[in-house]
Amino acid sequence: MKMLINVPETVVADALRGIAAAHPELTVDVENRVVVRRDAPVAGKVGLVSGGGSGHEPLHAGFVGPGMLSAACPGEVFTSPVPDQMLRAAAAVDSGAGVLFVVKNYTGDVLNFEMAAELADDEGIQIAQVVVDDDVAVSDSTFTAGRRGTGATLFVEKIAGALADEGAPLERVAAVARRVNGASRSFGVALSAVTTPAKGSPTFDLPTGELELGIGIHGEPGRERRPMMTSGEIADFAVNAVLEDLRPTGPVLALVNGMGATPLLELYGFNAEVHRVLSERGVPVARTLVGNYVTSLDMAGCSVTLCQVDEELLRLWDAPVRTAALRWGG
Amino acid sequence: MKMLINVPETVVADALRGIAAAHPELTVDVENRVVVRRDAPVAGKVGLVSGGGSGHEPLHAGFVGPGMLSAACPGEVFTSPVPDQMLRAAAAVDSGAGVLFVVKNYTGDVLNFEMAAELADDEGIQIAQVVVDDDVAVSDSTFTAGRRGTGATLFVEKIAGALADEGAPLERVAAVARRVNGASRSFGVALSAVTTPAKGSPTFDLPTGELELGIGIHGEPGRERRPMMTSGEIADFAVNAVLEDLRPTGPVLALVNGMGATPLLELYGFNAEVHRVLSERGVPVARTLVGNYVTSLDMAGCSVTLCQVDEELLRLWDAPVRTAALRWGG
Repeated sequence: MKMLINVPETVVADALRGIAAAHPELTVDVENRVVVRRDAPVAGKVGLVSGGGSGHEPLHAGFVGPGMLSAACPGEVFTSPVPDQMLRAAAAVDSGAGVLFVVKNYTGDVLNFEMAAELADDEGIQIAQVVVDDDVAVSDSTFTAGRRGTGATLFVEKIAGALADEGAPLERVAAVARRVNGASRSFGVALSAVTTPAKGSPTFDLPTGELELGIGIHGEPGRERRPMMTSGEIADFAVNAVLEDLRPTGPVLALVNGMGATPLLELYGFNAEVHRVLSERGVPVARTLVGNYVTSLDMAGCSVTLCQVDEELLRLWDAPVRTAALRWGG
Repeated sequence: MKMLINVPETVVADALRGIAAAHPELTVDVENRVVVRRDAPVAGKVGLVSGGGSGHEPLHAGFVGPGMLSAACPGEVFTSPVPDQMLRAAAAVDSGAGVLFVVKNYTGDVLNFEMAAELADDEGIQIAQVVVDDDVAVSDSTFTAGRRGTGATLFVEKIAGALADEGAPLERVAAVARRVNGASRSFGVALSAVTTPAKGSPTFDLPTGELELGIGIHGEPGRERRPMMTSGEIADFAVNAVLEDLRPTGPVLALVNGMGATPLLELYGFNAEVHRVLSERGVPVARTLVGNYVTSLDMAGCSVTLCQVDEELLRLWDAPVRTAALRWGG
């Protein structure tokens, strides 16, 4: 498998140097692997810190900026960052108003953020945490006890980030983050396996002519393999899997997400099918986002995340955001 | 090759339905294949119309909106749109101030836009045209007499779009578009072949362990094949190929573009190497854009486009833009 890299050992550091070169509005500590809003800490504002294994870009560094994350800590590819990174990030963004850790539900991430929270507490930084666990495909999986955290992370970071920018206190920012996670569900599909730089060959074997329903963002196994399906059939399966669990009673935000190697032309076609299913099921869609946001390196495939919103959540979703990957308003 | 599609015949129409569902700020004529700013025609404003074969998304429909294109006409995958689409687009966006056609230099596109210009003239719509031909890899290629039009299209559409939004007359908008094209050069590299929905298998054969230097965005042959190179070696080759031809005497805009299937993590790492080479060559970089903007379906690889800018071009680049794929300011 050919990759656009120097050597596997420097992939994350190289990317951080590239982020620094492209984004003068971010402070990038390449050695310690922390990406911070240049204007942090913002007086009186709750800080938002997230992080996780690399390989899911633009998540999380692409979501650092006004209206969303204050800082991100990238780990090695598909490997949790260490508590020291999270502590550095928290210290860099804490204005005294406290810091919310947004944690995807993978065992390593949960343990390391927990340890970082204790270390931060020792340093007098007030920490709250939200664990994102939106993937309905399987309960318990490789690296995870309970449900995996995937696409809802984007909704949590955007909406909690908007509330933090309004000056809300830590407990309210944490509460809205938990509310968004509770109102969100995801389901993902792989059309091809993923190859990590360290391994250099696909991490699992997906036979020609088959797809995997319910895949995780590290290539963790899903619910089942089937002969290849059409875009419409995949939308039926994925959206119905989400709706069975979410049972929305009002409008939703829809994230139609690419896993990395699926062309945008195909993602938009898939979005048409997602909207068809939602319309058939009587679910109104308030906003739709289509693109590669929570990826799995070079995996082909897609995921659907729905988040039921009320007026407050929709207002916070629409609030201005200025990051590398998500940007609108103001 | 597995694709997220229904059937090859409906790929473009399906994508247009998906664009319509995701972007209420656009008017999408699925049947006639025209995507238009919802507020077009804008009184007194020159219209900007572009188009070309599908498979390069977000180009061009993702660049329709305030500050950039007024309309886009997508053809079949890797196939020019027809003059009727261009004429419809021109008629939809013309406020009486005329319309600029932004044409990538492929024989079919050039001929069809030329014919559309004649038809529009018959209907009393004043048309100017700019042909984008920035790819230094080869002169003459499959589908092209002269140089191919690639990444510079984004710079032309953004900068001319900003000037049009300021109310400049057609001849000035056309002149700045030509100036941007003249100041821009690109070079692309393929790490894997591209598969079109209609063919269903790779359109060319790229052996394991080799890459193609100077590839076109339809998989047209480049300059040469070599054993796989590192990200740093590729940056040296690509940037130097551009600089040999451009010989900039001032700051540049840099587009570090993914061909579709190369992870953003790798693109950012490559961007670090592009900046290293530019720094070694003494070329200051005013702005950098990293991501999948001018793609080739599922091809792995990247391209570098540089555009030398003066104060006016940089001001227009920085001006607010509000499209699906490019969005900042205001």
